[in-house]
Amino acid sequence: MNALVINNFQPLFLAQLQPGDYVGFTFFIGSMAMLASTVFFFVQMTRVEGKWKDSLLVSALITGIAAAHYFYMRSFWAENQTSPTEFRYIDWILTVPLMCVEFYLILKPYGAKQSLMWRMIFWSLWMLVTGYLGETVFRSQSAIWGAISTIGYAFIAYDVWFGGARKLANSSADVNLQTAMKILGWFIFAGWAIYPIGYMAIDGGLLSGVLPVQAMDLIYNIGDAVNKIGFGLVIYSLAISNQKATATA
Amino acid sequence: MNALVINNFQPLFLAQLQPGDYVGFTFFIGSMAMLASTVFFFVQMTRVEGKWKDSLLVSALITGIAAAHYFYMRSFWAENQTSPTEFRYIDWILTVPLMCVEFYLILKPYGAKQSLMWRMIFWSLWMLVTGYLGETVFRSQSAIWGAISTIGYAFIAYDVWFGGARKLANSSADVNLQTAMKILGWFIFAGWAIYPIGYMAIDGGLLSGVLPVQAMDLIYNIGDAVNKIGFGLVIYSLAISNQKATATA
Amino acid sequence: MNALVINNFQPLFLAQLQPGDYVGFTFFIGSMAMLASTVFFFVQMTRVEGKWKDSLLVSALITGIAAAHYFYMRSFWAENQTSPTEFRYIDWILTVPLMCVEFYLILKPYGAKQSLMWRMIFWSLWMLVTGYLGETVFRSQSAIWGAISTIGYAFIAYDVWFGGARKLANSSADVNLQTAMKILGWFIFAGWAIYPIGYMAIDGGLLSGVLPVQAMDLIYNIGDAVNKIGFGLVIYSLAISNQKATATA
Amino acid sequence: MNALVINNFQPLFLAQLQPGDYVGFTFFIGSMAMLASTVFFFVQMTRVEGKWKDSLLVSALITGIAAAHYFYMRSFWAENQTSPTEFRYIDWILTVPLMCVEFYLILKPYGAKQSLMWRMIFWSLWMLVTGYLGETVFRSQSAIWGAISTIGYAFIAYDVWFGGARKLANSSADVNLQTAMKILGWFIFAGWAIYPIGYMAIDGGLLSGVLPVQAMDLIYNIGDAVNKIGFGLVIYSLAISNQKATATA
Amino acid sequence: MNALVINNFQPLFLAQLQPGDYVGFTFFIGSMAMLASTVFFFVQMTRVEGKWKDSLLVSALITGIAAAHYFYMRSFWAENQTSPTEFRYIDWILTVPLMCVEFYLILKPYGAKQSLMWRMIFWSLWMLVTGYLGETVFRSQSAIWGAISTIGYAFIAYDVWFGGARKLANSSADVNLQTAMKILGWFIFAGWAIYPIGYMAIDGGLLSGVLPVQAMDLIYNIGDAVNKIGFGLVIYSLAISNQKATATA
Repeated sequence: MNALVINNFQPLFLAQLQPGDYVGFTFFIGSMAMLASTVFFFVQMTRVEGKWKDSLLVSALITGIAAAHYFYMRSFWAENQTSPTEFRYIDWILTVPLMCVEFYLILKPYGAKQSLMWRMIFWSLWMLVTGYLGETVFRSQSAIWGAISTIGYAFIAYDVWFGGARKLANSSADVNLQTAMKILGWFIFAGWAIYPIGYMAIDGGLLSGVLPVQAMDLIYNIGDAVNKIGFGLVIYSLAISNQKATATA
Repeated sequence: MNALVINNFQPLFLAQLQPGDYVGFTFFIGSMAMLASTVFFFVQMTRVEGKWKDSLLVSALITGIAAAHYFYMRSFWAENQTSPTEFRYIDWILTVPLMCVEFYLILKPYGAKQSLMWRMIFWSLWMLVTGYLGETVFRSQSAIWGAISTIGYAFIAYDVWFGGARKLANSSADVNLQTAMKILGWFIFAGWAIYPIGYMAIDGGLLSGVLPVQAMDLIYNIGDAVNKIGFGLVIYSLAISNQKATATA
Repeated sequence: MNALVINNFQPLFLAQLQPGDYVGFTFFIGSMAMLASTVFFFVQMTRVEGKWKDSLLVSALITGIAAAHYFYMRSFWAENQTSPTEFRYIDWILTVPLMCVEFYLILKPYGAKQSLMWRMIFWSLWMLVTGYLGETVFRSQSAIWGAISTIGYAFIAYDVWFGGARKLANSSADVNLQTAMKILGWFIFAGWAIYPIGYMAIDGGLLSGVLPVQAMDLIYNIGDAVNKIGFGLVIYSLAISNQKATATA
Repeated sequence: MNALVINNFQPLFLAQLQPGDYVGFTFFIGSMAMLASTVFFFVQMTRVEGKWKDSLLVSALITGIAAAHYFYMRSFWAENQTSPTEFRYIDWILTVPLMCVEFYLILKPYGAKQSLMWRMIFWSLWMLVTGYLGETVFRSQSAIWGAISTIGYAFIAYDVWFGGARKLANSSADVNLQTAMKILGWFIFAGWAIYPIGYMAIDGGLLSGVLPVQAMDLIYNIGDAVNKIGFGLVIYSLAISNQKATATA
Repeated sequence: MNALVINNFQPLFLAQLQPGDYVGFTFFIGSMAMLASTVFFFVQMTRVEGKWKDSLLVSALITGIAAAHYFYMRSFWAENQTSPTEFRYIDWILTVPLMCVEFYLILKPYGAKQSLMWRMIFWSLWMLVTGYLGETVFRSQSAIWGAISTIGYAFIAYDVWFGGARKLANSSADVNLQTAMKILGWFIFAGWAIYPIGYMAIDGGLLSGVLPVQAMDLIYNIGDAVNKIGFGLVIYSLAISNQKATATA
């Protein structure tokens, strides 16, 4: 096996893209966009006040972890032209729970309890572990595992749209927070819903006849950009507008 | 294909330049100049006040993203002696919209709206996507695609010279801003106009008989240095002179 | 031997994981989790006051050193599918004594002496050196060396549960500190006890018939995550709650 | 050519030095000394006041750019045992103009105009471009090109010793500045004069019978250390002594 | 020779250690300990006042330069199992003079002159250059060159124990400084004396029959850890205790 290793070698930072490899394009653009966002969130973290520093730090960690894995994934894609499934799930298993921490952090000043955070983290892990099994070990039954995975998604979406998280935001007098929660709710609803579409494009999936196999990674990459960078920018805007409101009051 | 990979390997940070490879020289000098500029803009960002921090941060991100891609491009050039088209467009698709964000940021205090920013970003993407198609997939019709690309350029130039952006600057009482907008206008007019000359040097292009093929990369590299580092320096000068004006007032 | 070196080569940052290699998964997740924790502790260090800065700096060094070695270990595992014993012990021989320094640092304001620190460091080195010998040079007698190693563990556990360290915490009027000491005591008791279970899974170990060989690394990885990241988070919480208490008083 | 690439590969950061390769020694020591100086100037930049920050930042950029190229050059030398001419000139074409910027920055408070800076930059580029041509493309006529190159040097030396730069320093009441200008004048006179001696050691040069070929790189390395690190230290001393003078006044 | 290069290739950051290679262990532990110390000294530098910042910065540079070379040396050792003599002396030729600068920096407030610093630097270079010649070019006469090298050591030791440096410390009223000088004196006397023992273990050395050849590197590694990290910690303690004394006074 060792002899193969050297043949598999593709220098990490010089992975080369073929003209017309549009999926590869999104991997490369994604890696740089995640890195630039990380720098942006770190710098802005030094400029906002107390409680917002934690939120922006978590945003920076989310895009930072994603940036690292996009560098791995773009090399993997450039070399193999197949989906870097393992790297993707390692990324998600770290960043999706961190997004749940974000929800908790912005709601904490209005009485959110740690149980909200742990509940969301539990369902996010449920969603990811079952999704991974459906994409790899039990690929022939990907539809079933996809359905099981969706249960986790549903609980999180419910929490943000109707459950504890939304009620807390509504009970606060903070208009900016309510707006942000609505936007984040749409991220969960529409942004996260991008992923199942990608998932169904795999061989034997519901959309496998409709979409080409490469569609999965293209869709996942768009989903990541929207949900990680966009998510962070909403948090950032909330921090800036809240800080201004405090300054005026 | 894997067996070839190792042969294609050129260590990223030790790409070697042949004596007399003047195009290669501009790639190497460009990579370091972009990196040094990034450090410069980051450090200066810590020294200017509030609203200028965002502008200098964006300048640093622009040259930083460019620096990363110049390191890739210089290795690609050193190895293949052909144009690293994919890396170039990945760079531009991230940095040119960021330049449009710069315009918005310096005009925001005088009432610029986000619609100005999104309009400019739209036309910059139009310009880049059609330009890429003309250089690669539809290379035989590069002239037509070049013309389509130019439409995007024209709208941006119009905005900066006569449209919303210029009017906002004129209506402000800020002399420094007006000077800066004039300089940035010239960057768009003359600096960005460098690129079409490079574009026309490709095989079958309008200038393909006049200029050698390598001229394209030489011209692109000069254009990038002028438009990214120069652009940032104008923003930096504006920040410094405005800060002094505020301090005296 | 040199000829083999190149065959053994596995690019450090692009070590590839096989689908279903769950032990490998924990190595990869561990490497990123350690890195993200290091960034987190460093940033938080800039935000806490005087004496807590040292504690968070040491926390960051612990996870930082671990992050570096997890990057080595994940590559080693990906390539060889065997335990990276040497890297693990190099990591531990640096980070475990630093954990003992942590105990000293949080107890110093209540009169802890350097002798407490050196005593704990001595027993931690005893534990590690004898453990290493049992896993490698004297593997056929791993049970005996494991027992000798446990003596070091017992002395540290005694100190934290009943000895000097606990008494100091009890004599302080600081409720937060007492709570933290209890949690850290449980880390030592239950968290560190994870490791012997892994140790007994090696060939000829007490659990070698019960657990598969790979169980050792899986267990060690979980132990490290709990004891290094968890340990640091307890210190961080203690710093935050103490700082608030001081601010209110 | 690709097949050769892998044979030419010498890992950048593990370039190995042969015992007794004294020229190689100066490359290795130079790379680390430049790096350490860069860290030193960056840290000191955070400690000096306003106008001196720019000067120390430029000093750090000069040694930083040099450090990067010394890492390339030491690998090149270790592998080929020939002069890394291209890397050297890429370094100089960036750092020598930055030294001219330094002169302008320290004289600006006493009325130096940008024309002084641009004039010095022009002559420094003249000096470098003609020097490069003499070392490579027109090596058989290296003496003639060396003479042409010296014209650029003469104009810069004149400016610092008798011209506009010196007059400005003399007209200021600042004794520290006058001392610094004298030292910098000696750097230009004696420090920069080291380079022509190296230049004349190349094949067919005036000293090619007197000095061995390797002497060129040895002399260039000593020159760089003196002129880049030493130059920065003079600026640093000037900043410190001026700051103290202001504090006492 | 080029064909061999690739065979000699050992990836820098994944150099692998064989079980039971205890000398290799000290190289690996040393590299990480130096790196962690560098981070520690840099962070502490931001927390101490004015004059101590320079001292801690120099401490950080010393361990930082050592860290870089220990990464090289550990790879070299892992691959060749022979002493990385060239890397060691490149490290020392940069760090030992910096230790002499440390002595000057802590004595400067009590009237130390630059001549003290230059004198110590001169003898340290004497010690290193003659030591290198004895280990490589004139290895058959290593005893003679070792004796010549010792002269440099003797002059430095004299200065710290009885000469100008000690007198300055004694004449100051600063008890902390006197304690620190005594400790540093013991570092020079006992810590630096570790090295000659290693030196005598080389082939044909005085202890070559007594100690195995590998003993040299083991002893050098212990010496470096003691003298670089320990030295820095003494400076750090002095800074902290002096700062407290000033705060109380």
